[in-house]
Amino acid sequence: MAGKKVLIVYAHQEPKSFNGSLLKIAVEELTKQGCSVTVSDLYAMQFEPRATRNDIVGHLHNPEAFNYGVETWEAYKRGGLSKDLVEEQKKVQEADLLIFQFPLFWFNMPAILKGWMDRVLVQGFAYDLSKAYDGGLLQDKLSLFSFTTGGGQEMYSKGGIGGDIRYILWPMQHGIMHFCGVKVLAPHICYAPENVSEEKRKEMLTAWTQRLKTLWKEEPIDCSPEWYFK
Amino acid sequence: MAGKKVLIVYAHQEPKSFNGSLLKIAVEELTKQGCSVTVSDLYAMQFEPRATRNDIVGHLHNPEAFNYGVETWEAYKRGGLSKDLVEEQKKVQEADLLIFQFPLFWFNMPAILKGWMDRVLVQGFAYDLSKAYDGGLLQDKLSLFSFTTGGGQEMYSKGGIGGDIRYILWPMQHGIMHFCGVKVLAPHICYAPENVSEEKRKEMLTAWTQRLKTLWKEEPIDCSPEWYFK
Repeated sequence: MAGKKVLIVYAHQEPKSFNGSLLKIAVEELTKQGCSVTVSDLYAMQFEPRATRNDIVGHLHNPEAFNYGVETWEAYKRGGLSKDLVEEQKKVQEADLLIFQFPLFWFNMPAILKGWMDRVLVQGFAYDLSKAYDGGLLQDKLSLFSFTTGGGQEMYSKGGIGGDIRYILWPMQHGIMHFCGVKVLAPHICYAPENVSEEKRKEMLTAWTQRLKTLWKEEPIDCSPEWYFK
Repeated sequence: MAGKKVLIVYAHQEPKSFNGSLLKIAVEELTKQGCSVTVSDLYAMQFEPRATRNDIVGHLHNPEAFNYGVETWEAYKRGGLSKDLVEEQKKVQEADLLIFQFPLFWFNMPAILKGWMDRVLVQGFAYDLSKAYDGGLLQDKLSLFSFTTGGGQEMYSKGGIGGDIRYILWPMQHGIMHFCGVKVLAPHICYAPENVSEEKRKEMLTAWTQRLKTLWKEEPIDCSPEWYFK
């Protein structure tokens, strides 16, 4: 799929990690396909996860009582968001596909990646009054959550102590991506890479390469409650 | 319940906000009851949400490939975690009740609070090898998630576009608190305080005060998949 643009938002501290290998594979395979790949390496960028007044350049809409949602919305409209946010929004705007690559931390993404969501996907840019879900502002884009877990697959099953892994995907896939109008491809999950054999790890890396080869032919999941909780 | 110790972990930028009012009420009411109340005001503390090498003082267990989980576990055991983490852990250790007060951001807690979870609740301190869930290391403690939403209550119902609010609680209550052995009281949710009348807002604040008066008589929820997904 030559010409397609991909943004990989990557949240791991160590290039030699399994997440680092998954990132490398995605960059290489997608580049080989002729895609243009951009990586936001959040730890390397020392990306700021805190949503604060610093995200607004210049005056506040209401300096009496700081409301982050209102202030970033107003700042977006007048072009007054901080430089780091504007740069990330540009990358999102240009992308056909967003890949989020991270280790699952506490049934969720690491704080640095949650901060990217909190700060980049502001009202006016990603959604607006009555422009959400299928009407969200980031339509015609795809997303894919690719992550590793600490626990094994049996732990994240319906009868397992962690419950169905799809329960964990609801806030990320439905609550964020679907909310912004972004379509969601099936997640890519590598279970417990730290606790399996070197051979199994290699198999997992190969599986990711293989999946990427036909990624552009995939249909998005039906991002409805039934998919998550049936 | 004189003598009980409460830690409130608070994540809002603005003291004049509705979350700020909920915090103030909790501090006042619990203090009036004779509880000793500590507040971790994360934005005011400029709490660091990023999980990095800076959290480990001195040498790394494996400087060749940085693994945050392994490094913080090893550092915990030798007393080598950074000062801000040790201080938060001390507050958690002493507390009988943890209250998390925050605005829901993207179906989840704000990044700064997620960072508190990521960095404070390290292996060895909050859980350990086969010491998780009912065997977690933070037993005999209670927790309570108190938060505000942007959307109205009808949005967060089973048939609503946001789905049952309990779906959102699974990663926080089960995946974090229950995992660490902490018991979970029913969440306290104020729906869309920014979009209701001043009268309704006052009612919500009064309801919080009232609930706090009998909080210590409450039984924890049954933190099982049935509670969340039935």
